[in-house]
Amino acid sequence: MRENTARSLVLPVAPTRGRLRPLGLDEVRITGGFWARRRHINATATLAHCRDWMEREGWTGNFRAAAEGRIHRDRRGREFADSEVYKLLEAMAWQGAAYDGEVAALTDMITPAQHPDGYLNTAFGRPGQQARYSDLEWGHELYCHGHLVQAGVAQSRARGEGELAKIARRAADHVCTAFGPGGNPGVCGHPEIETALVELARLTGEQRYLDQAALFIDRRGHGALADAEFGRAYYQDDLPVRRAEVLRGHAVRALYLTAGAVDVAVETGDDALLAAAVRQWEATVARRTYLTGGMGSHHRDESFGDDFVLPPDRAYSETCAGIASVMLAWRLLLATGEPRFADLAERTLFNVVATSPSEDGRSFFYANTLHRRHRGIAPPADRVSPRADSGLRAPWFAVSCCPTNVARTLAQLPAYLATVDDDGVQLHQYADAELTTSLADGQGVALRVRTDYPSGGTVAVRIGRSPARPWTLSLRIPAWTAGVTVRLVDPDGQRRTVAPGTAQLTRLFRPGDEIRLELPVTPRWIHADPRIDATRGTVAVQRGPLVYCAESADLPDGRDVDAIRVDPSAVPEDGPDGTVRAPGELVAPADTAWPYRPVDEHSPAATDPAAVTLVPYHSWANRGPSTMRVWLPTTPPPTTPTRR
Amino acid sequence: MRENTARSLVLPVAPTRGRLRPLGLDEVRITGGFWARRRHINATATLAHCRDWMEREGWTGNFRAAAEGRIHRDRRGREFADSEVYKLLEAMAWQGAAYDGEVAALTDMITPAQHPDGYLNTAFGRPGQQARYSDLEWGHELYCHGHLVQAGVAQSRARGEGELAKIARRAADHVCTAFGPGGNPGVCGHPEIETALVELARLTGEQRYLDQAALFIDRRGHGALADAEFGRAYYQDDLPVRRAEVLRGHAVRALYLTAGAVDVAVETGDDALLAAAVRQWEATVARRTYLTGGMGSHHRDESFGDDFVLPPDRAYSETCAGIASVMLAWRLLLATGEPRFADLAERTLFNVVATSPSEDGRSFFYANTLHRRHRGIAPPADRVSPRADSGLRAPWFAVSCCPTNVARTLAQLPAYLATVDDDGVQLHQYADAELTTSLADGQGVALRVRTDYPSGGTVAVRIGRSPARPWTLSLRIPAWTAGVTVRLVDPDGQRRTVAPGTAQLTRLFRPGDEIRLELPVTPRWIHADPRIDATRGTVAVQRGPLVYCAESADLPDGRDVDAIRVDPSAVPEDGPDGTVRAPGELVAPADTAWPYRPVDEHSPAATDPAAVTLVPYHSWANRGPSTMRVWLPTTPPPTTPTRR
Repeated sequence: MRENTARSLVLPVAPTRGRLRPLGLDEVRITGGFWARRRHINATATLAHCRDWMEREGWTGNFRAAAEGRIHRDRRGREFADSEVYKLLEAMAWQGAAYDGEVAALTDMITPAQHPDGYLNTAFGRPGQQARYSDLEWGHELYCHGHLVQAGVAQSRARGEGELAKIARRAADHVCTAFGPGGNPGVCGHPEIETALVELARLTGEQRYLDQAALFIDRRGHGALADAEFGRAYYQDDLPVRRAEVLRGHAVRALYLTAGAVDVAVETGDDALLAAAVRQWEATVARRTYLTGGMGSHHRDESFGDDFVLPPDRAYSETCAGIASVMLAWRLLLATGEPRFADLAERTLFNVVATSPSEDGRSFFYANTLHRRHRGIAPPADRVSPRADSGLRAPWFAVSCCPTNVARTLAQLPAYLATVDDDGVQLHQYADAELTTSLADGQGVALRVRTDYPSGGTVAVRIGRSPARPWTLSLRIPAWTAGVTVRLVDPDGQRRTVAPGTAQLTRLFRPGDEIRLELPVTPRWIHADPRIDATRGTVAVQRGPLVYCAESADLPDGRDVDAIRVDPSAVPEDGPDGTVRAPGELVAPADTAWPYRPVDEHSPAATDPAAVTLVPYHSWANRGPSTMRVWLPTTPPPTTPTRR
Repeated sequence: MRENTARSLVLPVAPTRGRLRPLGLDEVRITGGFWARRRHINATATLAHCRDWMEREGWTGNFRAAAEGRIHRDRRGREFADSEVYKLLEAMAWQGAAYDGEVAALTDMITPAQHPDGYLNTAFGRPGQQARYSDLEWGHELYCHGHLVQAGVAQSRARGEGELAKIARRAADHVCTAFGPGGNPGVCGHPEIETALVELARLTGEQRYLDQAALFIDRRGHGALADAEFGRAYYQDDLPVRRAEVLRGHAVRALYLTAGAVDVAVETGDDALLAAAVRQWEATVARRTYLTGGMGSHHRDESFGDDFVLPPDRAYSETCAGIASVMLAWRLLLATGEPRFADLAERTLFNVVATSPSEDGRSFFYANTLHRRHRGIAPPADRVSPRADSGLRAPWFAVSCCPTNVARTLAQLPAYLATVDDDGVQLHQYADAELTTSLADGQGVALRVRTDYPSGGTVAVRIGRSPARPWTLSLRIPAWTAGVTVRLVDPDGQRRTVAPGTAQLTRLFRPGDEIRLELPVTPRWIHADPRIDATRGTVAVQRGPLVYCAESADLPDGRDVDAIRVDPSAVPEDGPDGTVRAPGELVAPADTAWPYRPVDEHSPAATDPAAVTLVPYHSWANRGPSTMRVWLPTTPPPTTPTRR
């Protein structure tokens, strides 16, 4: 690893060391296409939607009630409701000047609720409430402080230090005093404070914040928390972070914790801790991740399942876990430079993060199932919905962590597209974008990326400004291209075939030079490891980075997706408007009184040949209630098993 | 339906009307074999085990604390802990005279805790506690009263009315006063009081108990309870009982409620309500039941999943749900006489109820998974275990409903073997047994059944005493014999082939006559309806009524059950000691960084041919920590899919 000398301050994550140096929101702009549309809706609809719902549900009002001394009887929402206000503030800060007024107004509401010693939480610590830190397992007080700190860091970096940043810093100082050496020896049931404190240390240069984050990481796994019904693995207190082999327990908790561990490892030069995080990520991606990049296969405790327990119909795949996975992957990419981390981030962004918000940015999936058997009913427009009912997107949830998390992620998304290092520029994610930065020697570089990725696979990179010396343009060749031919065309028109990983072009670039990457985004059948019991005998379709699904809206005569059988010996083809046509048939199994029978008995099933229309998974449930499946059963083998 | 004139009073369920008349514990004795062994262990080990754990955990002590006025600070266990004491008392009452002393001692402890108006609960209603019935959703007060009433009924019928029966009747009177017309309009979050009140009405002839039960059934489904995070279906308050099409929500709640609905329907002649229960049972058995008869596929809320959502690895299949399913099936069998209800009861008894207790009767499964991926660790011998960790049986649980439920079920099991009607005797379950009863005209019949079922399939019925007129012996021909040849041999040695359903032999029987039923219990491959996604591409083995499983204890070199691939084109065969040998192979899939790949790529897997030893599912995990699976993946099709 090397030292980073950041050129920009507008960075969600700003490690002082690492293989790659991130670019700020002032250095990369997304100018069109898939993500520009979603960022536009986020800025113009989602932020106001979140603010309105929090006002309506009383979550912002909690701060007023606290200041007015009536919180013990008037508090609304769950114990972590404060954090939603902070996440919205963070999103607004990254979004820029247009939200300065909103940020100031919300901050004015929060300020009087802070205790003189910096503690800030509307659910604990006042007369008539539970005592501070009396329920570290479930109280989420440090979690809320963490989101406050992240909002403060965002304000400092994106808009310049204001009142919010000051509140946040006072809260962080309080946490260090309360939980520092000799203080409360506990940790929070929900990790989050760790990444926040490291980022504040990066912003301020204050060692104590980093030390406190490292202390929280090291305390965990030694019985810091009380036993829980779900077991101590639920909040990762079963094993010390550096000894664990795989992520387990509550998925968001596990991923935030590991992101925090990477932050601490990078800042303290703790290579063993970084290696532990990489090892856990590898095992998790190899054995506990859905095709979409989604993580978490248990509804009961919103947790990872055992290895290869990935039932499509019970996929929890929480939106926030997808976001946390992108956060972790980004930190590992910066630390190591390895494209596999960007591969998972791409998959998760397109198939989890982009799936959550509706087209109008005013409703969301909390969980992202890969198989929906029943048409949902429209959720209420005027009250909160249960979080994991994944039939249709809902405007707000009783536990509503996902909408504000999507909002802050989309607001900071341009920062995840590219990096620089001593040798040049690395493009990790492909979008219509403009990039203006400088290399390690201070010489300026400007690029313009044009693509309709992921609809199309051609990515054109035009050099705007370039040093008068050779440098290296690195392009991630996605892992999903394994087995197909990817071509890179250099400014001279020379084409070469490149393999998954990183393609590098080192030369003296001139303004106007264009580099073209040709990624073949044709639909392909995908099958799963046979150890995933729940997808045996099925295939899925992926086209470029996009996972596809069948939706009942595209079937004739009110038929259901469970009737679909596809034929993987034939080829899926592009259909109109970004759809895919999969060869197969529709079956109608006969109803029986008992669903098990000897192998030599057969239940008749009527079949109709059909080419089944598939749509991108991220777009499902935008046409009203529908059934849906990603993994499609294959046509059964033609012959009857015969006894011998 | 006709009126029943019971000859025996020692009946767990004593409908006044119905197609069949049940026999009492004084009319049927189990004399040997599978169930005799389990009943012996139940009587000699399990009952004392339950009593000792409840004393140790303070659940019996709660009654002392209540009487001594210190319950508000000393209460132990969950809100429904009282009910475990009542279920144990019920088991002891059915078990007979040997437990009279224990019953009296426990009753002496309970008596002073009853309020003058009959209310009895150690968790509510005293100074410093929550008010009575202030939490009908979760408080379980009517549930506890229900189990108290069932214990009282058991005492009255099996041992003659004593103090326990008097307490129970006072409690029932209180319930009718408190929840009768003009009283509290609520219902209990956990159904149970309904069956109890009907049984008390049957015992006492008091109409008010029946009316109250009918009122509880009718109130449900009209928003009687508050909204719950799991949805109102969780406690069956989403739809009126008579309008529902299938069982849903918490499995034990759903099954107890439906059993209560059948009881009310039978006693009030409400054919529409009975038809609704039958319809829901049919849909549940056709689409929401595991091969074992187990019910409930969600851990999150211990509930039924959607239709065909039956993941083996997340099977909750709670022991108590199995017991409740037997209770419901028995009531439907008595009402209708249809053998399909006895078929499900048999399957559930052998594969769920018999699976729960260990061989020594001192540890239990709470949940009964059909697939265990990790070897469990031995649960603590000296403290309670989490309820759904299904790796190994545990001595006691924080929520410990199952051990006492198993105990009371085994204690009353002989009552489920046979019935009589105007025409003769019906044998529903096969066990070494002696039966002495009388037909409708009062003439005596005695039978002796000899069999080593389910190990062997020959059932010999010897007539001991018989009226000097023709009558009909009916034998259930299990549904699992579909497709194989079953023979019935009459006393003259005449053999005939009989089909699944009921075989009847009407003749003038003489003492010494022997009827022989030959059920071919050879192992057979079973496959599941293709709509059960989680078992696609797998088969199971059933031998007679027993479901089999592979256990890692039987694999070489520490191999794991997930390595097993079986070949359903070859025939499974009997192995030694009740095992089955299944033809197949062991595979070792290569580890990969990402578990999804295009269909035309192949992951190499080393394979070794092997005949895999299978054991009866009920016996698994009796040899220490093991992995286990019921559904075995089949060998993949021989050819690679090719594009065309």
